[in-house]
Amino acid sequence: MYYYNIEGNPTDYRPTSHTTPTRYRDRARYDRDTVHRILDEALICHLGYLGDGRPVVLPTTHARLGETLYVHGSTGSGPMLAAKPAGLPVCVTTTLVDGLVLARSAMHHSLNYRSVVVMGTARLVDDPAEKRRAFDALLDHVRPGRAADCRPPNARELAATAVFALDLVEVSAKVRDGGVADDPEDTALPHWAGVVPLRLAAEPPVPAPDLDPATPLPSYLT
Amino acid sequence: MYYYNIEGNPTDYRPTSHTTPTRYRDRARYDRDTVHRILDEALICHLGYLGDGRPVVLPTTHARLGETLYVHGSTGSGPMLAAKPAGLPVCVTTTLVDGLVLARSAMHHSLNYRSVVVMGTARLVDDPAEKRRAFDALLDHVRPGRAADCRPPNARELAATAVFALDLVEVSAKVRDGGVADDPEDTALPHWAGVVPLRLAAEPPVPAPDLDPATPLPSYLT
Repeated sequence: MYYYNIEGNPTDYRPTSHTTPTRYRDRARYDRDTVHRILDEALICHLGYLGDGRPVVLPTTHARLGETLYVHGSTGSGPMLAAKPAGLPVCVTTTLVDGLVLARSAMHHSLNYRSVVVMGTARLVDDPAEKRRAFDALLDHVRPGRAADCRPPNARELAATAVFALDLVEVSAKVRDGGVADDPEDTALPHWAGVVPLRLAAEPPVPAPDLDPATPLPSYLT
Repeated sequence: MYYYNIEGNPTDYRPTSHTTPTRYRDRARYDRDTVHRILDEALICHLGYLGDGRPVVLPTTHARLGETLYVHGSTGSGPMLAAKPAGLPVCVTTTLVDGLVLARSAMHHSLNYRSVVVMGTARLVDDPAEKRRAFDALLDHVRPGRAADCRPPNARELAATAVFALDLVEVSAKVRDGGVADDPEDTALPHWAGVVPLRLAAEPPVPAPDLDPATPLPSYLT
């Protein structure tokens, strides 16, 4: 790993050879605000690690507390076991899809998206207090306020759940937004061109069949 | 890699040690119909590979033609270069998030989701005819019919775009659906419990500013 000698905001993440895209470098972002917003908005991430020397990518959930990313380890015991005791080399990537970009030319079709890639060595969280904070963060990540509005995990449940911590050091975001970028000679072609915005929409909450009908819908769900 | 000796539909994908989850095995699916539907619905996938011996996970787009998954290689030249000539060991994972599952207990919070994991050795598509078919499939994956309604790629554009092909052999799906699964002793707790359905919603298409206003909106966008 080496650092590029670039002029940047001193509070930005420092690009490395692994977090500098080889194409579309103008889409790369290293400022903490952009990175944090994407991590905080994305409901899930994809955790990459080596299993028997092969790349494995599993979906899971995450939450950020300051400059630490917590990753839920319920996707399997494989990465959990591999993580002891030296930590687990991982790549955690999360992507928000914001729109379809339909150009006149096949070549310039694209998606609008915002993604974050975090590389590093994840450690299993052992300390019960940190694990409890991470658990709360994972719940509040889904809907802020939920951690205080459910039965907290007991000692057995905490022990049964693996949580990884990954420091936000080798981090980059990539953002593609805006409109169609057709070549000038294509703009007169008769094909429709434009953007179809996409968003993850929440439908009305469906109460559990055995929920007491007197239970009010919490404010964080309205 | 070894195969589990299970009784399954002979047309199902055969589970291997890498595609058998270590937890929640009841959520695993190996039937082609489930796998195909998820791959066909998901707009993006996450491509995992080894870069300098480390796991790297990048978002990209994909399309399925029969039992071949084509993966767009515009995310960087790293995986493209690494793929020659023996192919690139990869894990391609795609995940659809269908809902938030809010239980009374912190422990039983979950997401409803459908995911597919494909492992294997990807090959770079060299044959121009196959590459053109893959290109069309990537466009029609976004909106069926689009490939025939835009300017096709010319030879230079085809050469500038890398496409991977990955046979659907070592494949599994995972599906979590349904409702809340609280422990019986928790069901009387006063917390709201239920599911918040989620879906990727398309908003009205936004024409490019320089689009001829007489251009009709194609049927695949209405």
